Amino acid sequence: MTLDLRDYIATVPNYPEPGVMFRDISPLMANGEAYRYATDLLVDYARSKDVEMIVGPEARGFIVGCPVAYELGVGFAPARKEGKLPRETVKATYELEYGESALYLHKDAIKPGQRVLVTDDLLATGGTISATIKLVEALGGVVVGTAFMIELKDLNGRDKIKGYDIFSLMEY
Amino acid sequence: MTLDLRDYIATVPNYPEPGVMFRDISPLMANGEAYRYATDLLVDYARSKDVEMIVGPEARGFIVGCPVAYELGVGFAPARKEGKLPRETVKATYELEYGESALYLHKDAIKPGQRVLVTDDLLATGGTISATIKLVEALGGVVVGTAFMIELKDLNGRDKIKGYDIFSLMEY
Repeated sequence: MTLDLRDYIATVPNYPEPGVMFRDISPLMANGEAYRYATDLLVDYARSKDVEMIVGPEARGFIVGCPVAYELGVGFAPARKEGKLPRETVKATYELEYGESALYLHKDAIKPGQRVLVTDDLLATGGTISATIKLVEALGGVVVGTAFMIELKDLNGRDKIKGYDIFSLMEY
Repeated sequence: MTLDLRDYIATVPNYPEPGVMFRDISPLMANGEAYRYATDLLVDYARSKDVEMIVGPEARGFIVGCPVAYELGVGFAPARKEGKLPRETVKATYELEYGESALYLHKDAIKPGQRVLVTDDLLATGGTISATIKLVEALGGVVVGTAFMIELKDLNGRDKIKGYDIFSLMEY
């Protein structure tokens, strides 16, 4: 069976601001068949990279990465915003359109040398995923791949993570 | 194989404020074997309730619910804070220690009559889960169960969701 996953993406014009076409994965997740189908494609990719651990930024990175971790029988570590992780962390900052933001990872989330897959729903400007990669590497992890439901080609996020393997299920 | 899941919970004293013992599930999630074992117990519970859809509040509710949805082949809908969902939503408020907060669900997330499991990491005071139940019911969903990794008995969250079936993997 082949599904066209684009049939399950809602496009919301002018969100979150005028001129932006927001690609919403929530109809895909809400459909059991489509969510499982999409996840299985990510699982195949992760298997091909001998992934030992998955890291995703909050919060949609959890929705993408957690079922992949479960199916592979590997762990999942959430990269979170400030004040969300109770124990010792590493921190990475990234630029937003105005100002900057930061992501954190528990220091014991990754073992040195572990083969890590980084997941998120969207590859847009690449800021979030680039910060997540920095966190993994600060702990000695090896980022063997990055996986997304959607890549927004026009935003050139690919340029920000040059040298890393990129897998996405859909392109816009 | 039986695992004692408590071996994978980190207890952080005085977090987020003095006198609170924070139960952190992140070591459990970071261990592939433990995460899979815990998820499979939740899957068995969900199967026994003929669950058709899973709803979890951001963000740890995603980590608990998404792999269960994947394994059952059902959908997952995230209950989110303000400004996170791009399309038409329903809203439910809940009380915090000081003030109140709100959760939102896309209006098309649940079909009337659908059998819904609500998931989160912790059952504490029950505020978040009670708001999530309200959202599901506002859309005509039937909450056939609630599932947690941990129940904090002293906070009496159980009283706030009386009449709903409750399943938790650990109690403190």
